[in-house]
Amino acid sequence: MLKEFKTIGILGKIQDPEIADTLKALYQFLKPHYQISIDPGSAALIPEYSGAIHPLTSLVEHCDILIAVGGDGTFLAAARAAADCHIPLVGVNLGRLGFLVDISPDELLTKLGDILQGKYRKEKRFLLRTKIIRNHQIIHEETAVNEVVVHRWVTPSMIELQTTIDGVYLNTQRSDGLIISTPTGSTAYALSAGGPIIHPGLNALLLVPLNPHTLSNRPIVINGDSEIEINFNKNKEINAQVTCDHIDIPDVLISDTILIKKDPDPITILHPENHDFFHTLRDKLNWSSGYHF
Amino acid sequence: MLKEFKTIGILGKIQDPEIADTLKALYQFLKPHYQISIDPGSAALIPEYSGAIHPLTSLVEHCDILIAVGGDGTFLAAARAAADCHIPLVGVNLGRLGFLVDISPDELLTKLGDILQGKYRKEKRFLLRTKIIRNHQIIHEETAVNEVVVHRWVTPSMIELQTTIDGVYLNTQRSDGLIISTPTGSTAYALSAGGPIIHPGLNALLLVPLNPHTLSNRPIVINGDSEIEINFNKNKEINAQVTCDHIDIPDVLISDTILIKKDPDPITILHPENHDFFHTLRDKLNWSSGYHF
Amino acid sequence: MLKEFKTIGILGKIQDPEIADTLKALYQFLKPHYQISIDPGSAALIPEYSGAIHPLTSLVEHCDILIAVGGDGTFLAAARAAADCHIPLVGVNLGRLGFLVDISPDELLTKLGDILQGKYRKEKRFLLRTKIIRNHQIIHEETAVNEVVVHRWVTPSMIELQTTIDGVYLNTQRSDGLIISTPTGSTAYALSAGGPIIHPGLNALLLVPLNPHTLSNRPIVINGDSEIEINFNKNKEINAQVTCDHIDIPDVLISDTILIKKDPDPITILHPENHDFFHTLRDKLNWSSGYHF
Amino acid sequence: MLKEFKTIGILGKIQDPEIADTLKALYQFLKPHYQISIDPGSAALIPEYSGAIHPLTSLVEHCDILIAVGGDGTFLAAARAAADCHIPLVGVNLGRLGFLVDISPDELLTKLGDILQGKYRKEKRFLLRTKIIRNHQIIHEETAVNEVVVHRWVTPSMIELQTTIDGVYLNTQRSDGLIISTPTGSTAYALSAGGPIIHPGLNALLLVPLNPHTLSNRPIVINGDSEIEINFNKNKEINAQVTCDHIDIPDVLISDTILIKKDPDPITILHPENHDFFHTLRDKLNWSSGYHF
Repeated sequence: MLKEFKTIGILGKIQDPEIADTLKALYQFLKPHYQISIDPGSAALIPEYSGAIHPLTSLVEHCDILIAVGGDGTFLAAARAAADCHIPLVGVNLGRLGFLVDISPDELLTKLGDILQGKYRKEKRFLLRTKIIRNHQIIHEETAVNEVVVHRWVTPSMIELQTTIDGVYLNTQRSDGLIISTPTGSTAYALSAGGPIIHPGLNALLLVPLNPHTLSNRPIVINGDSEIEINFNKNKEINAQVTCDHIDIPDVLISDTILIKKDPDPITILHPENHDFFHTLRDKLNWSSGYHF
Repeated sequence: MLKEFKTIGILGKIQDPEIADTLKALYQFLKPHYQISIDPGSAALIPEYSGAIHPLTSLVEHCDILIAVGGDGTFLAAARAAADCHIPLVGVNLGRLGFLVDISPDELLTKLGDILQGKYRKEKRFLLRTKIIRNHQIIHEETAVNEVVVHRWVTPSMIELQTTIDGVYLNTQRSDGLIISTPTGSTAYALSAGGPIIHPGLNALLLVPLNPHTLSNRPIVINGDSEIEINFNKNKEINAQVTCDHIDIPDVLISDTILIKKDPDPITILHPENHDFFHTLRDKLNWSSGYHF
Repeated sequence: MLKEFKTIGILGKIQDPEIADTLKALYQFLKPHYQISIDPGSAALIPEYSGAIHPLTSLVEHCDILIAVGGDGTFLAAARAAADCHIPLVGVNLGRLGFLVDISPDELLTKLGDILQGKYRKEKRFLLRTKIIRNHQIIHEETAVNEVVVHRWVTPSMIELQTTIDGVYLNTQRSDGLIISTPTGSTAYALSAGGPIIHPGLNALLLVPLNPHTLSNRPIVINGDSEIEINFNKNKEINAQVTCDHIDIPDVLISDTILIKKDPDPITILHPENHDFFHTLRDKLNWSSGYHF
Repeated sequence: MLKEFKTIGILGKIQDPEIADTLKALYQFLKPHYQISIDPGSAALIPEYSGAIHPLTSLVEHCDILIAVGGDGTFLAAARAAADCHIPLVGVNLGRLGFLVDISPDELLTKLGDILQGKYRKEKRFLLRTKIIRNHQIIHEETAVNEVVVHRWVTPSMIELQTTIDGVYLNTQRSDGLIISTPTGSTAYALSAGGPIIHPGLNALLLVPLNPHTLSNRPIVINGDSEIEINFNKNKEINAQVTCDHIDIPDVLISDTILIKKDPDPITILHPENHDFFHTLRDKLNWSSGYHF
């Protein structure tokens, strides 16, 4: 039988105290059957490791599938790196289910074995591409799996953001900032800020204002193909920050224009065949047991 | 030049004290050029009226286009009636902009004139069809433009609803009820209950729990083609009510199953060419002037 | 040594399958040292029971202290009955901590023993008294530990409530209703409706609108000694319901006036000495473990 | 008749284009009857001005009453300065009602005249005092009329705050920060962050988490005499900022402890006799006209 995947990449959350055991088990399991490529930090945790070692940026070019071992944060890093290379991703958690890492250590070998043999549920998720425009030129470009956040920085008072969607003026809001989220990100920071849960299969973007001055300024769900343009009201002395998946884009000025649009390249996630988004929701949000009174 | 519309139907909100003047002006304007058909209550407010008179249910069969004059509630009634007949709708307000009635009395003749001459922006909006199932049979069927609400009734304590989406179990929630809203309805009752605003062009459904016991039970946005099935937990002595656009479906039992799905027939709204949903949002939600401090 | 309590009353949540064991253990523990008085349903679950039996309304007149065994609902019933008699209350849960029932079955004998020997933390909680006024006369009067709710009933659309506080007009709101809550009730229904948590020691009342039409209509916290008067806008054909701790006051008309004020008699709760409201909050609201992502 | 006030201080919001006319009118009105003391910026806008000139910090020592002319921000600055000197404050707006500036330019002379002749409604409002503790020493101390905010700064991800109330542990929250608000501040930033409205006469403090990770982490209202202690979880590389009425306390380290408690000196506001907090609420929050659909 032809194997779908020949070289398997592994990225581990090396700060986690439980990572070493999972990485070792994973390595023992895969070694007899696959080429393996791994990031330097993870390799150092597997004494018997003898395969290829690559930093994340080139790791994605040396494998047919990338396994992220850790939490949702590790998966996000893997996903941003994998987007350009069109390799699928698998998420393994370290004992605590995440929205993206849905294989647990105790079922790792059976579920991963199934996936590698072609028994998986494939899911596409789109990313956001953010461009910072200064003097009609793109000076930064960055990708986000969860969300882009434009928010005040250093400045202790509110900022004013002017938002345009596909060239049509939406509003000018005074607030702490604005989250532009994918459906994937709707269960992350946007949820803390009062946004709805959006099914990951929906082609939609979510805009959530951060502590808006105007109480009727509510989360808005728009078409996923929309282009969002954000400009700052420059009347006040303010500073602003733009983050992609909570990673800072350096040196944004309030005279810059921010453009946000779906990235043309989605990522591909391979889930166990019994993957169920609603089950993950119930589990992560304590719906089953979490009665408050 | 061929006229697109030959017979124009008119439905008026006859309880409104300002309706008579608008109806008279409308009649004078249309009479020279079109066949007119009107509901009995509105006809009684136009002393000089000499056209056809039909109640709403048959009015929609005797016109090529239906003009609803009043508030969003009048438009909803017109829209539910028009859905089966595939005639387009135009909404005229009585001095207060609505989300659906976007022509004001003072611009009525010019804007309506433009629309009737083919200068309009056409928009499709989908409706929800609710079926009440008892003993494997459909015992009631009803349509909603804004939302379906399943909620406790008489019963002073919370009810438990079990929700399934396309056959996949979502959750069992203790609450006062559940709103299932179209994008059109996202700016109506669902907004009061904490839901997001959904762009009317998005193919999505919105589920908003009413005062849920579990605090993490948040609004959810799913694919617009999903079928939602709701069953009651029958352990407790409860009563429940199902409403479509706030009109009661009589005699629902807690042993009944409720099925909700997009109606195959959308309605068509004709807007003035400069119609802008974001402008309506800013206006209706006081975003421009509504600073709270 | 003089005993502080001679006769101990017991009220059990007899529907709970785990109640019998706890009642038996409680009876064996108390029997050698105290007179016991118990409600009929609970008595029937203790085969060896040989003490006094009284329904709740008279039970409170035949004991020096009342132990409620069950959930918060059982405690609420005990508390409303005990208010007039000025006897203290102790809450025992059946394995699931409540906000009011804070002694668990596995620590029942030691903690209860301590309390009965005078080692307790005494806490006063105030109740609300609701009066329904018709033709200048009080036609109903009812007490609530958690909250009074005025809400639409049968009527599928919103109601309009006019609220006055100590004779000063507050607002007229269109909504599904209004919760008037004590600090005790702030962790019950009011929390589901978006209200804040209020420390039980604060002399305050909480007003929480139910799904208000106006988005800036937010929860309000006022002085605990305020008198709240609610009248209905009678323009529309509506029905309304008034509930106290989710128990219906029958036959309220929309022409009635509703007066709500702190009851002059607070209840007294005896807690174990290590009682800690914040600990209960963390536990009940899953603050320790309930990370959502 | 003895005058209650001999020297009147004036602080103006000099950036406002409409301030000059109001200041001139105010000066002409007061000059014949009172000693006047004014801040340098405002003095420069009144060509004919010939009274005393003092910066805000000493202005409060040279007057018996201080009139703040501008928005709520100007009033906050005046209030913080006036707290130590125990002089009463009057707020004059520039055409837009504020929560604190409740005399409008067009009624300035009559309403202010009344107040200066003793026809006023006196109201006390308490302030918060924040102490930054490092190595067991107070290194900064600052006062706030509205709120103290502890929030992440530069750091793009959430921070963890550990909160203790009167020495009792409340919780450890992951969030963007925490607002500690007075009742006065409950209609300012805390309202944008989802907090309730608290009547200004209530002796209470309000804690509002900013976008908390845990969805059940809700606003909490506690006794106004409580002392709040906040410490940072130092495991992560974070930066934090502490602001009082949105003014930054410089150089707070995450190893510092933050103590917040009611200031012993309240401020005194003199309102026109018909002052009505609920009227201001209805007006500022658009309750009368602000129906959203």
